[in-house]
Amino acid sequence: LKKIDYPEPVRELIRQLRRMPAIGPRSAERIALWMIQSRDSRTVEISDAIVKASSIRTCSLCGFFCDDTSLCAICSSPDRERQLLCVVEQPTDILPLERTGAFRGLYHALGGKLSPLDHVSPEDLRIETLQARIKQEPPQELILALSADVEGEATAHYLVDLLTGTGTRMTRIAQGLSVGLGLENADELTITRAFSGRTPLH
Amino acid sequence: LKKIDYPEPVRELIRQLRRMPAIGPRSAERIALWMIQSRDSRTVEISDAIVKASSIRTCSLCGFFCDDTSLCAICSSPDRERQLLCVVEQPTDILPLERTGAFRGLYHALGGKLSPLDHVSPEDLRIETLQARIKQEPPQELILALSADVEGEATAHYLVDLLTGTGTRMTRIAQGLSVGLGLENADELTITRAFSGRTPLH
Repeated sequence: LKKIDYPEPVRELIRQLRRMPAIGPRSAERIALWMIQSRDSRTVEISDAIVKASSIRTCSLCGFFCDDTSLCAICSSPDRERQLLCVVEQPTDILPLERTGAFRGLYHALGGKLSPLDHVSPEDLRIETLQARIKQEPPQELILALSADVEGEATAHYLVDLLTGTGTRMTRIAQGLSVGLGLENADELTITRAFSGRTPLH
Repeated sequence: LKKIDYPEPVRELIRQLRRMPAIGPRSAERIALWMIQSRDSRTVEISDAIVKASSIRTCSLCGFFCDDTSLCAICSSPDRERQLLCVVEQPTDILPLERTGAFRGLYHALGGKLSPLDHVSPEDLRIETLQARIKQEPPQELILALSADVEGEATAHYLVDLLTGTGTRMTRIAQGLSVGLGLENADELTITRAFSGRTPLH
């Protein structure tokens, strides 16, 4: 007897949904069936939202997401403490920091961390942009808010070596973070404590 | 200080993803950021798959999903036992039954079950189509595989009242299902046992 399965477009949808993080095979099938059984405009709205959001721009200065302007809401704000510059790995690290209210300066997202095993070297990160930025508008303090893991440490050491001598004070947030976990997994209190306990690097 | 959030297209994407079943706020944000940070074609592929699958057709006979033909893979198969007709609530109930291998007949998806509270009355279901189908090609046995809840029972009673006198033997699958749960939550063995223990209705 021929094995019956969903038609190919449904199977393809399930395959595509399974690529998304935190979606298992059961959830993917459930979402796919929910979509194809809809009698309203929900699927059009969802696919529209995906297309629109995927063409989102990033800020030319800090790397955070921004609408259609060249600078993001943080870099273009007159209310930020521009003499403080916080270096993070990903643009997605910025909002968890913002939500704590512990920091009112500017950000710089590197786009990752140094990782020879994953073939991520300095030229793959936004490090030249950081150097140019520091040269053009030297901050009083450069705060490294990187992951408390091996690659985060290596990235911090690399930046200290590179930027020592530019006259900018460099600190890093305290290891209040659980060692081995990235910023995205920390709670707001931990991030706040890590900020206030930051230690000088040189 | 102005509260910083994601740009509107990203917030809209998170809102849209949250509508999907089994997706909480954390998962929606995680998926959205994964999508907008992608450097490959994944978002195009996902939104394409949603659009393609949402225009899927349903079989004019049984209501199961089908590609671009009028009849689905089951109804058009020469290998099925056409004298057995199994009535289910949703087209999504058909695959769990198929996977057990316990049934080799044809199906009829009603598109729901009678539920006055949800304003679902007989004319909202594919009951006229069922009557026409039975008249045109009377099956030896009509097997009701409906949910073991109040609405499923009510739907079964309604169909028995309606179809008694058509000369078709009517049975329903045994209450091996956990009472109160629909077909989609039952495991294969339970569904198999429920099939083999089906009892006559009149």
